Amino acid sequence: MQTQILEQMESNVRTYSRSFPIVFTEAKGARLTAEDGTQYIDFLAGAGTLNYGHNHPKIKQALVDYLAGDNIVHSLDMWTAAKRDYLETLENVILKPRGLDYKVQLPGPTGTNAVEAAIRLARVATGRHNIVSFTNGFHGVTMGALATTGNRKFREATGGIPLQGAAFMPFDGYMGKDVDTLDYFEKLLGDNSSGLDRPAAVIIETVQGEGGINPAGLDWLKRLEKICHDHDILLIVDDIQAGCGRTGKFFSFEHAGIKPDIVTNSKSLSGFGLPLSHVLMRPDLDKWKPGQYNGTFRGFNLAFVTAAAAMKQFWSDDTLERDVQRKGRIVEERFQKLATWLSNKGVPSSERGRGLMRGLDVGTGDNADKITGEAFKRGMIIETSGHDGQVVKCLCPLTISDEDLLGGLDILEDSVKHMFG
Amino acid sequence: MQTQILEQMESNVRTYSRSFPIVFTEAKGARLTAEDGTQYIDFLAGAGTLNYGHNHPKIKQALVDYLAGDNIVHSLDMWTAAKRDYLETLENVILKPRGLDYKVQLPGPTGTNAVEAAIRLARVATGRHNIVSFTNGFHGVTMGALATTGNRKFREATGGIPLQGAAFMPFDGYMGKDVDTLDYFEKLLGDNSSGLDRPAAVIIETVQGEGGINPAGLDWLKRLEKICHDHDILLIVDDIQAGCGRTGKFFSFEHAGIKPDIVTNSKSLSGFGLPLSHVLMRPDLDKWKPGQYNGTFRGFNLAFVTAAAAMKQFWSDDTLERDVQRKGRIVEERFQKLATWLSNKGVPSSERGRGLMRGLDVGTGDNADKITGEAFKRGMIIETSGHDGQVVKCLCPLTISDEDLLGGLDILEDSVKHMFG
Amino acid sequence: MQTQILEQMESNVRTYSRSFPIVFTEAKGARLTAEDGTQYIDFLAGAGTLNYGHNHPKIKQALVDYLAGDNIVHSLDMWTAAKRDYLETLENVILKPRGLDYKVQLPGPTGTNAVEAAIRLARVATGRHNIVSFTNGFHGVTMGALATTGNRKFREATGGIPLQGAAFMPFDGYMGKDVDTLDYFEKLLGDNSSGLDRPAAVIIETVQGEGGINPAGLDWLKRLEKICHDHDILLIVDDIQAGCGRTGKFFSFEHAGIKPDIVTNSKSLSGFGLPLSHVLMRPDLDKWKPGQYNGTFRGFNLAFVTAAAAMKQFWSDDTLERDVQRKGRIVEERFQKLATWLSNKGVPSSERGRGLMRGLDVGTGDNADKITGEAFKRGMIIETSGHDGQVVKCLCPLTISDEDLLGGLDILEDSVKHMFG
Amino acid sequence: MQTQILEQMESNVRTYSRSFPIVFTEAKGARLTAEDGTQYIDFLAGAGTLNYGHNHPKIKQALVDYLAGDNIVHSLDMWTAAKRDYLETLENVILKPRGLDYKVQLPGPTGTNAVEAAIRLARVATGRHNIVSFTNGFHGVTMGALATTGNRKFREATGGIPLQGAAFMPFDGYMGKDVDTLDYFEKLLGDNSSGLDRPAAVIIETVQGEGGINPAGLDWLKRLEKICHDHDILLIVDDIQAGCGRTGKFFSFEHAGIKPDIVTNSKSLSGFGLPLSHVLMRPDLDKWKPGQYNGTFRGFNLAFVTAAAAMKQFWSDDTLERDVQRKGRIVEERFQKLATWLSNKGVPSSERGRGLMRGLDVGTGDNADKITGEAFKRGMIIETSGHDGQVVKCLCPLTISDEDLLGGLDILEDSVKHMFG
Repeated sequence: MQTQILEQMESNVRTYSRSFPIVFTEAKGARLTAEDGTQYIDFLAGAGTLNYGHNHPKIKQALVDYLAGDNIVHSLDMWTAAKRDYLETLENVILKPRGLDYKVQLPGPTGTNAVEAAIRLARVATGRHNIVSFTNGFHGVTMGALATTGNRKFREATGGIPLQGAAFMPFDGYMGKDVDTLDYFEKLLGDNSSGLDRPAAVIIETVQGEGGINPAGLDWLKRLEKICHDHDILLIVDDIQAGCGRTGKFFSFEHAGIKPDIVTNSKSLSGFGLPLSHVLMRPDLDKWKPGQYNGTFRGFNLAFVTAAAAMKQFWSDDTLERDVQRKGRIVEERFQKLATWLSNKGVPSSERGRGLMRGLDVGTGDNADKITGEAFKRGMIIETSGHDGQVVKCLCPLTISDEDLLGGLDILEDSVKHMFG
Repeated sequence: MQTQILEQMESNVRTYSRSFPIVFTEAKGARLTAEDGTQYIDFLAGAGTLNYGHNHPKIKQALVDYLAGDNIVHSLDMWTAAKRDYLETLENVILKPRGLDYKVQLPGPTGTNAVEAAIRLARVATGRHNIVSFTNGFHGVTMGALATTGNRKFREATGGIPLQGAAFMPFDGYMGKDVDTLDYFEKLLGDNSSGLDRPAAVIIETVQGEGGINPAGLDWLKRLEKICHDHDILLIVDDIQAGCGRTGKFFSFEHAGIKPDIVTNSKSLSGFGLPLSHVLMRPDLDKWKPGQYNGTFRGFNLAFVTAAAAMKQFWSDDTLERDVQRKGRIVEERFQKLATWLSNKGVPSSERGRGLMRGLDVGTGDNADKITGEAFKRGMIIETSGHDGQVVKCLCPLTISDEDLLGGLDILEDSVKHMFG
Repeated sequence: MQTQILEQMESNVRTYSRSFPIVFTEAKGARLTAEDGTQYIDFLAGAGTLNYGHNHPKIKQALVDYLAGDNIVHSLDMWTAAKRDYLETLENVILKPRGLDYKVQLPGPTGTNAVEAAIRLARVATGRHNIVSFTNGFHGVTMGALATTGNRKFREATGGIPLQGAAFMPFDGYMGKDVDTLDYFEKLLGDNSSGLDRPAAVIIETVQGEGGINPAGLDWLKRLEKICHDHDILLIVDDIQAGCGRTGKFFSFEHAGIKPDIVTNSKSLSGFGLPLSHVLMRPDLDKWKPGQYNGTFRGFNLAFVTAAAAMKQFWSDDTLERDVQRKGRIVEERFQKLATWLSNKGVPSSERGRGLMRGLDVGTGDNADKITGEAFKRGMIIETSGHDGQVVKCLCPLTISDEDLLGGLDILEDSVKHMFG
Repeated sequence: MQTQILEQMESNVRTYSRSFPIVFTEAKGARLTAEDGTQYIDFLAGAGTLNYGHNHPKIKQALVDYLAGDNIVHSLDMWTAAKRDYLETLENVILKPRGLDYKVQLPGPTGTNAVEAAIRLARVATGRHNIVSFTNGFHGVTMGALATTGNRKFREATGGIPLQGAAFMPFDGYMGKDVDTLDYFEKLLGDNSSGLDRPAAVIIETVQGEGGINPAGLDWLKRLEKICHDHDILLIVDDIQAGCGRTGKFFSFEHAGIKPDIVTNSKSLSGFGLPLSHVLMRPDLDKWKPGQYNGTFRGFNLAFVTAAAAMKQFWSDDTLERDVQRKGRIVEERFQKLATWLSNKGVPSSERGRGLMRGLDVGTGDNADKITGEAFKRGMIIETSGHDGQVVKCLCPLTISDEDLLGGLDILEDSVKHMFG
C-alpha cells in the first residue's frame, strides 16, 4: 500500500491512522476493506457516526437519486425542498411521537459547531455566561466548546489562553457509590459564596463517550433536570455520540423520561457519514436575531436527504430500538464475562454502558491498547476511550448482523485471552 | 410553495431565506430553479462556495462513481484512497507548480474550524497568544475564530464574554489614501508600551469578503509579509472566500507574490458545495501532537473525491485563470459604469475587487438592499456585504457562461436604474 | 452628629457605616468612642486589622518619634532604614524562630494587591495559569484576586466579564463529615479529562474569615500540603485575616505544621491599622524580573515602623500566643453555651473557630443581623460573615482586657437572649 | 551602609533601589538624606506622590496632633470625623470652586485599586465591558487595571493569561503631526465591523506619566470628550500622576475645560506620602450596590487628615497654581536648551510636558540612564520614563525652593554635558 504521501503531507495531528496504519478503500455494513483486500469488522464505526453501517443501500439510493436530479447541493441556508423534507421528517417521525416540541437551528455541520451554537444560545437567552459541564465530558474543541471539554490534551493546546465560561461538576458516580454528586452541585448553587457563578446552562452527555462510556443513572438525570428547573438553568443534552439510537432510543435522554431545553445532534444524524448537525431548542428560547450565528455550510442538502431517508427507514417503528436493546444485552453479557475473566487474571476490569454504547474497562490505557492492537491484527477495528484510554469501547453499527457482532466479540475475546492469558 | 414548516421549525437565526423567501429545488451551472419553476441567475453562488457552478457534471460523475463503488464515505481521519488522491492532487496540481511547500491539516470541514485550527497552531508554535486581525475582517463565529472577526452582530452575541486573544489593526486604506496603515502596525510592534501584545500571527483576507470586497494592495501585502518576517510573526492568509480561483489565481495571495506561513481554505475547496476545509502550514510549524485538535468529520471522503476532480478539471492548466481575469474585467467595467451613473444621480458609489470577487459600493445598506431586492424580482440572486451591507457583491460562479454573466449584469443595471432613476 | 455630607458624598458602595450609622472620633484598645461620647466595645477591630487594639501606646510612640525625626515617609521602593529594620525584625523575630526561610515582596499595601502578586508569581514560576481556590474563600476584589473569591456579590459586579484563571474546590467539611473533600481534589488532579487544568497553585485561608469562620482541619491541611508537593503545585496560604496571631500563632498554618511556598499577610501586619502587605515566598520561587510588579505605595515606611515595633513588642516571646489561646477558649465556651441555648430555642446554632477567630453560626443572616443590631444598641461593635451572613464573628483585639472581653460576651449573650428569648 | 539584609531578603522585583543603591534616612522638602549624611535633590518625589515635598511641617503637625488625640486610625469604612472633614474639604476647597459635582468612592488606597473600581463602575453602569485605553498608557498592574496598561513588561508577567476587557487607541500625536488619531477612533466607533466592541468607557491620562511625559493637546481632549458624549461612552480621567496640581491645576483636565464622568486620584492626594486614593463619579453613575467593591483599607484616616490639611494649605487660593506654572516655565526653558544642545551634538532630543510634569526626551533609554546615573553621582535623584525609558523626567515637588530647583537643573545640565560633551 502506498502511504508515503499520506505520512509526508498530513499534519502530525492525525490520529486514527496511527492505530490502523493502512489505506481503506471500500466499506459495507459493518465491514471495512483495505486496499490489499483484507476485511475488518468495524466496531468503531466513525466513533458513532455510522449507526446504520457503511453505505446503507437505501440511504445511498436516496442520495444518488438526488444527485441525478441536479437538485440543490449547496445554497447556504436558503430554503430547499430537501431541507423541508428533513424538517418535516424530523417533526413527524422523531419529535411528535416523543411529545417533543423543538425549533431547529442548523449550524455548521460539525458537532463542535452545534455545541458552540447551543451554549451561546443559552447565554443569549439567560444573560448569564456560565456553562456547567461534567468531569470526563467531551463537547468539541473549538474555543467555546473546548471550555466545556474536560480533556487536558486539548485544553493545554490553546497557546496559554485559559478557557472561560465553564465550570466542571462531578459526573454521576465520580465520587464513588456512596456520594450523589448532585448533592454537591445543589449545595454550590444554593451557596452565595461557593465560587460557582449562576449557570446559564448545564451541558451533559447522558452516556459519556470519549470520557469512558459512562452512563449517568436515570434517576440522577431526572434529579439533574429538576435542579435545573428549580434554579432556572437550561439543560442541554449533548446527544452527538449517544443520540440517533445508540443507546436503544433515538434520544439517549428518553430512557430517563426527561425533556432537555436544548439538544445537540450530529455524527449519525445524516445516517450516511455526511457532516450534519442541528440544535433543537425549546421554541421560547429562540432568542437569536437573524444571522447572529452563521457559517457557509449551515444545512448540507445531501445530508438532509440521507438523514430523512434514515429517519424514515429506521425510526418509523420500534424495530431498530428493540434490536439495539437485544444486541446491547449480548455485548453486555460478553463484556461482563471478559471483565470477570480479566479480574480473575489480576487485571481489574468492569463493564458498563447503555444499549450498544458499551465499554470494557481494563484498568489502564496500556492494557486497552494491547487488546485493540491484537484485535486489529485479527481483523477488527475497535478503539479506546476514557481519561487514560483505559476503556475498550463497542460502537459497532446498530444494524450490524448477528454474525458480525458475534464475530467481533469473538475476536475481542481471543485478543483479551491472547494478551492476558 | 409550501413554506410553513420551514418558517415554523427553523430558528430565527436563519438569514438567506429572508432575502429569498422561496423554496429552491434544482440547480445547474449559474442557474437556480425554484419549486415553481422560476429560474434565477446566481451571483451569490454559496457566498463563494460554488466557484465551479452548481452540479458540475464531471465532478458529479466522480462523486456518483465513488458512491456506486461502495467506497469509504466516513472513517474518521483514517487513511483512504480518496484522501491519498486528494493530497497527491493538491501537491501535484496546486502546490508544486506554485513553488509552495506545505503540510496539510484536515480539521472539521467548515471554515471556522480551519481558522480555529490555524490560530491555535500559531499559538502552539510560537508560545504567544495574540492574533492580529484587521478591521472588517471575517473569520468565522466559533469563539476562537470570532475573536478575530470584526462584526459586532456576532461579537455581541457571546452572552457577555469578551473575546480574547486578538487585536485589530486598520486594513489597507482604512485611514484614507494618505496613510499607510502598516506604519501604525509597525510602530505599535516596535513600541514596548503600545498595548499590543507580541503577536503569534497575523490573519488576513487579501480581499475581504464579508467586510465589503476590500482588496489589499499588492505592495501593502508584500510589506505586511516583510513586517511579519522581521518581527517573527506568522502570516496566516484566510483564503476561504478569496481562494480557489475567485481572484483569478488559485490562491489569492499569488498576485502579491507572497508565501504565507499558514493558509486556510474551505468554501469552494470541495468544488461541489460539500463541506471541506484544510489548513496548509509550513512543514516546520507542524508542532501538533497527535490528536491535539480533533473532530468527527476531519476529512470528508466524498469531498476529497469532488475536490480532486475539480483540481484536475480546472487547475491543470491556466484556462480558468485567464477566463476569470477576462470576466473580472467585464464585471469591473460594468460596475464602474454603474458607479458613475449612481454618483451622477447623487448616490455616492464606487467599484472595487479583484478577479471575479467584485463589489459595487452604493453608500448605504438601504441602497444596496433596494438593488438586490429588485434584482431578485427580476430573476437574480445577489447579496450585499460591508459593515453596513452597503456593497452589492458579485460572487458568480467562475465558470458562468458569458450569456448568464451578461444577463446578470443587465438585470443588475436595470435594477439600479429602476430604483434610482 | 453631623452625617449629611457623609450620606450625600460617599458612594452607595459604603458598607459598615450602614450597620453603625454614627460618627466615630476616638479609640483606645478595644474601645471605640463616637462623637457623642458613647463608648463601644469593638469585637470587629477592623475585621482583623487591629489585633493589638486601637492606638497601642508603644506602637504609637514609635510612629510619633519617627515622624518627629523627619524620617522618610515615602520614597517608592527605595531602601530606607525603616525598611531595613522591618525586614531584620521579620527575619529575626518571626521567620527564623519558626524555621521559615522566605524572601519578601512588598506590593501595594492592600490585601488584594498581595494576593494578585502571589498568584501572579505562582504563574510566572510554574508557567501554568490555574489557581485552585476553595468554596467560601475570600481573597480580594481586584480582577485577578476576584477570580479566586467565591462571593457572587463581587463576582457579578464585573460588568459581564467571566473571571478567569481559577477553579474552586470544596473546602474541608463542605460535603459533610463523611467526605474528605481532598479525595475529590486528588481524583481530579489524577484524571486527565477531569476538566481541572493543572494548577499553578492552591490558595487557601486556613480559617476562612469572610466565608464564615471555617477552620480547616489540621490533618486536612497537612494532606493538602502533601497533595501539592506530590503534584508540583505551589501552596499559598492567604494569612491576611487569620495571620498575625489571630488563631493563637503568628501564622495560622503553624498549627498544622506545614510550610507554604507562598504566604500573604496584610491587615494586622502593620500593627496599628496602617496599610501594609507583604508576600513571603520560597527563595527559589523568586522569578520576578526587576519591576515586573510595581506600584506607588510598595512598602509604606510609617507602616514598617509600626510593624517592627509590634513584632518586637508582641512576638519576642510567647506571652501573646498563650493569652490568645486562653481567651480563645473563653470565647469558645461562651459561644458554645449560646449555641446550645439557641438550639434549644429552635434556632439551629453552632460554634467554630481557632484562637480568637471564632464564629457563632445562627442559621440565617436575618438571625445574625438581629443579634448584632441589638448588640450595637447595647454598646458593642460586632459583625457577621458567611455565605448568608449567618455567622456572628468575634474578631476582638487579641490584647483586649479580660474585662472588655467578658463585657462584650455579656452584651452578646444579652442580645441573643433578648432577641430569641 | 548596611544593605545586606535588603539585598538578601527583598524580592528581585525591587526597582528603584537598583538605580539608587543606598539607604535613605531623612527627608525634608525637596531633599533626601542618605544614611551617610549625603544629601540629594529629589526630582522624583515618589513619582509624583510628594507634590508638597517631604515632611511638610504643617501637614505633619496635623498628623501628629491627630495621633496625639487617640483619634481613629482604622475602622474599615465606618464614618469618622476625619473622613467627614476630608469630604467637606474636598467639596468646598476643590470641587465646588471648579463647578464639579461628584460623589466619592474610597477604594483600597492605591492607584490600581482606584482604577479597578473606576472601570468596574463604568461596566456596571453601562452594561458593556470594553474599556478604551491609549498607547503608552499606564493605569496599574492588578489584572483589571493591567488590561488598560500598555507596558509589555507587566503584560507578559501574567503567566499566559491574555488580558481582557480593553482595547488600545493611538494617543494624541502617536501617528505623527499630520494625523488626528481621534479620526481613527471615531471611524472605528461608527463602523459595525471594525472589531472595536462598543466601549463602556475611555480611560486616559491627560499627560501620560510612565509612558514618557506625553501631554494630550487641549483641543484633542475636548474632541475626545465630545466623541464620548456622542457615543454614550464614559470618560475616565486617570489623574493619579498628573493630578493634585502637578500640571499647574488641581485636576490636569482643567486646562482643557472638560468634565470627565469619572476621575481617579491617588499619589499626592494624601499630601504626605500616605496611601490614599479615591474615585470621583458623576452622581447618577453611582450604580454600586452596598459593599460590591470592598477592601480593608478603604479610606485611611491618617491620610484623610493629611489630605485635608494639604487641601486647606495649598488650594484655598491660587498661589500654588501660579507658582507651579512659573516653575514649569523655568524647567521648560532649561530642558529646551538641553534638547537643543544635545541635538547639536547628534543626540536627537526634545522637551515636552505641562506645568511641573516635564520630560527631556534623549532618544534612547541608554542615553537617559547615562544622564540620570551621572546626576545621582552629583547629588540628585531623577528617573526616566517612556517606552524605552528614553525620557528624563522632572517630577520635583511643586513646593521646591527656587534654589533647589535651579540647583537640580544645574546638576542635570552638568550631567548631560559631562556624558555627551
